[in-house]
Amino acid sequence: MSSKTNLPLFRKRQEKIFSYLQSRGCDAAVLADFEGLRNRSLRYLCGHPQDALLFLFAKGKSVLVPWDIHLAETWAHVDTFLPYTEYKRSLAQAVESIILQQGGIRTVELSGKFSYPEVNLIASSLGGIELVCEEQGLDQTLLSLRSIKDPVEMEQLKRAFRITDQIIADVTHWMQEKTTTEQELALYIEARAREMGADGLGFETVVAGPKRSFNIHAFPSYTASDLTGEGFSIVDFGVCVAGYTSDVTLTVLGRDLSRRQSAMSETVQEVYALAQSLLEPGAGLVDVARRVDEAIKERGFDMPHSLGHGIGLDVHEAPLLRARAAAEEAAGAEVDAAGDAAKQGLRLEPGMVFTIEPGLYDADAGGIRLENDFLCTTEGIEVLTHSRLIHRSG
Amino acid sequence: MSSKTNLPLFRKRQEKIFSYLQSRGCDAAVLADFEGLRNRSLRYLCGHPQDALLFLFAKGKSVLVPWDIHLAETWAHVDTFLPYTEYKRSLAQAVESIILQQGGIRTVELSGKFSYPEVNLIASSLGGIELVCEEQGLDQTLLSLRSIKDPVEMEQLKRAFRITDQIIADVTHWMQEKTTTEQELALYIEARAREMGADGLGFETVVAGPKRSFNIHAFPSYTASDLTGEGFSIVDFGVCVAGYTSDVTLTVLGRDLSRRQSAMSETVQEVYALAQSLLEPGAGLVDVARRVDEAIKERGFDMPHSLGHGIGLDVHEAPLLRARAAAEEAAGAEVDAAGDAAKQGLRLEPGMVFTIEPGLYDADAGGIRLENDFLCTTEGIEVLTHSRLIHRSG
Repeated sequence: MSSKTNLPLFRKRQEKIFSYLQSRGCDAAVLADFEGLRNRSLRYLCGHPQDALLFLFAKGKSVLVPWDIHLAETWAHVDTFLPYTEYKRSLAQAVESIILQQGGIRTVELSGKFSYPEVNLIASSLGGIELVCEEQGLDQTLLSLRSIKDPVEMEQLKRAFRITDQIIADVTHWMQEKTTTEQELALYIEARAREMGADGLGFETVVAGPKRSFNIHAFPSYTASDLTGEGFSIVDFGVCVAGYTSDVTLTVLGRDLSRRQSAMSETVQEVYALAQSLLEPGAGLVDVARRVDEAIKERGFDMPHSLGHGIGLDVHEAPLLRARAAAEEAAGAEVDAAGDAAKQGLRLEPGMVFTIEPGLYDADAGGIRLENDFLCTTEGIEVLTHSRLIHRSG
Repeated sequence: MSSKTNLPLFRKRQEKIFSYLQSRGCDAAVLADFEGLRNRSLRYLCGHPQDALLFLFAKGKSVLVPWDIHLAETWAHVDTFLPYTEYKRSLAQAVESIILQQGGIRTVELSGKFSYPEVNLIASSLGGIELVCEEQGLDQTLLSLRSIKDPVEMEQLKRAFRITDQIIADVTHWMQEKTTTEQELALYIEARAREMGADGLGFETVVAGPKRSFNIHAFPSYTASDLTGEGFSIVDFGVCVAGYTSDVTLTVLGRDLSRRQSAMSETVQEVYALAQSLLEPGAGLVDVARRVDEAIKERGFDMPHSLGHGIGLDVHEAPLLRARAAAEEAAGAEVDAAGDAAKQGLRLEPGMVFTIEPGLYDADAGGIRLENDFLCTTEGIEVLTHSRLIHRSG
């Protein structure tokens, strides 16, 4: 989605927020994306990739305040942009100036990602204007819109999936033929992704050999240690195209598995198939995730993370496939992997792109996870990537 | 700083927060580090690298709630840790349970990084307990502690600087000898860093050839386009060792510079030297940054970013070298590059490690930046890295 080629697309997205604001009786919305406070909804709404404030006015106007004005000239699809330096790079000052300048603004919705002190500061500088800032408002609406991919988004994702599948094949080959280190494999994946035209990776690749695979996400992500040897090795990566990322995990299985390792491997494959069989348009996500968790428990194991999650501009976004009761969903705030996406997407809908990724982790036996990406269509579930458990040959 | 070798170090850091809480009349502090809400102070306090909640109790107890319990077993230096799954991975539920379980807690300080809705939700579940959540509190205290590096931190940073300097030499050689693309150079830097024992990079390397260098931080960070040719090419990277990162920028200058390009190059070098001459223990950072900004303006240019910033566990942390009046500092919230670090480090102190990075950007002439890392000692300013403007040879 390079430069200014998708004006109607971004305008259409902004118009959905204008309507949302009108329906809520709000005059304006403010979002921010900065280091330490990333919010990809800003990119979704206007194409500007990062480091900016975005103002959307219910009467149909968008204003961007970018940190780097040159970046906005290339990427931003908004009515106006104004340099952040004009407001001495102060959030409160920018919000105050731009809101007051519009005139007639009575109610402003702030993104629920703003910190408590920031909202208080903005409130003190906007005396007389009513502020709304809640988890279930603007951000949820945006996550919900983003959870249904449009044709332009699907095109980028499908490019990412094609490259991902090629890398899965390459890694499978590599792991069967070569002695390697975690680091060599991780850098190879990045180089291959870029050779094939990806922007890069959607997140830092995890390559964890048998001694470290018991971590859900090993830290550091990869090391100089040997990747061969018996036991489980986990390889988790995502390919990024035009901001949209895939997310897959394959596990390499050593030659002689212990009884426990065999049981783990069988369980992962069984519940992966179970999840696939249960997921269909309209399926309740909490219910599917719960049934998978139960199946895992019946086999004597426990999964410490969600069954899956949406992917797109974020590697973890709505819908979230996790086994929490709807009542808990409504009551509890979340700052884990998929953040406030937790309340999104309780039913699978056509256009949703998501992972299924059962995983089991044992300090002695190691970790095993199988993760692929799927699209929900009106017909059913389309498999988009083809990662698998790889048995080391010979 | 691998596994459990630095227990006294982390305990000492936690004790400073216990004292801080006692002096404020607070019984407990809560911090979080999760995807989309990174807070490296958590790692600073207990060694656990990411994805956890940390509770510090004034009477001298630390409790960690990690997303991945295995990671905590390897890395966390706390009195107790409890799996996040025990609280159904719900922030509010974990805070409520752990605070109420302690008994006798009357006042709790929450990190000022928590979102407005999160704080409200925690408040509603902790009825009767007083909550404090402000920008100038816990987070500032931690940024202030982190801004003065201790010997263990300096050891990690010095390893990062040695590798950085070697890469600067390699890149200089490479740029004079070879035809290359942005991507080839960026991947070469990463491979070299890891070969020499770095954990990896502190941030995504920026390599921007003459057509893209006018961006402060080009987006995408690097592409398949050719890096040779006339004009300015910017290379900005950081080497990460045990979580601590360097941050340097070198600019490659083409053979035939325009008059404007020559003026930009001279200005950057002059104000870089000016900043070095002004910075000494006790120097007022706002004042130095303002004098540099003025010198740039006298030469007919304008710098759209800060003069420099602290480095450490974050690539942008306290102290911040920027030309804002102290009064503005006190009044305005910040969500830009160094976030709430803005109010920190108004005077340079021994133990501070920081960048000086004057840069100029012009849509026609391109961008040029020179950035190195420095340590303030009781004697003066020690130069830690040796990046420079590179003239392409004959």
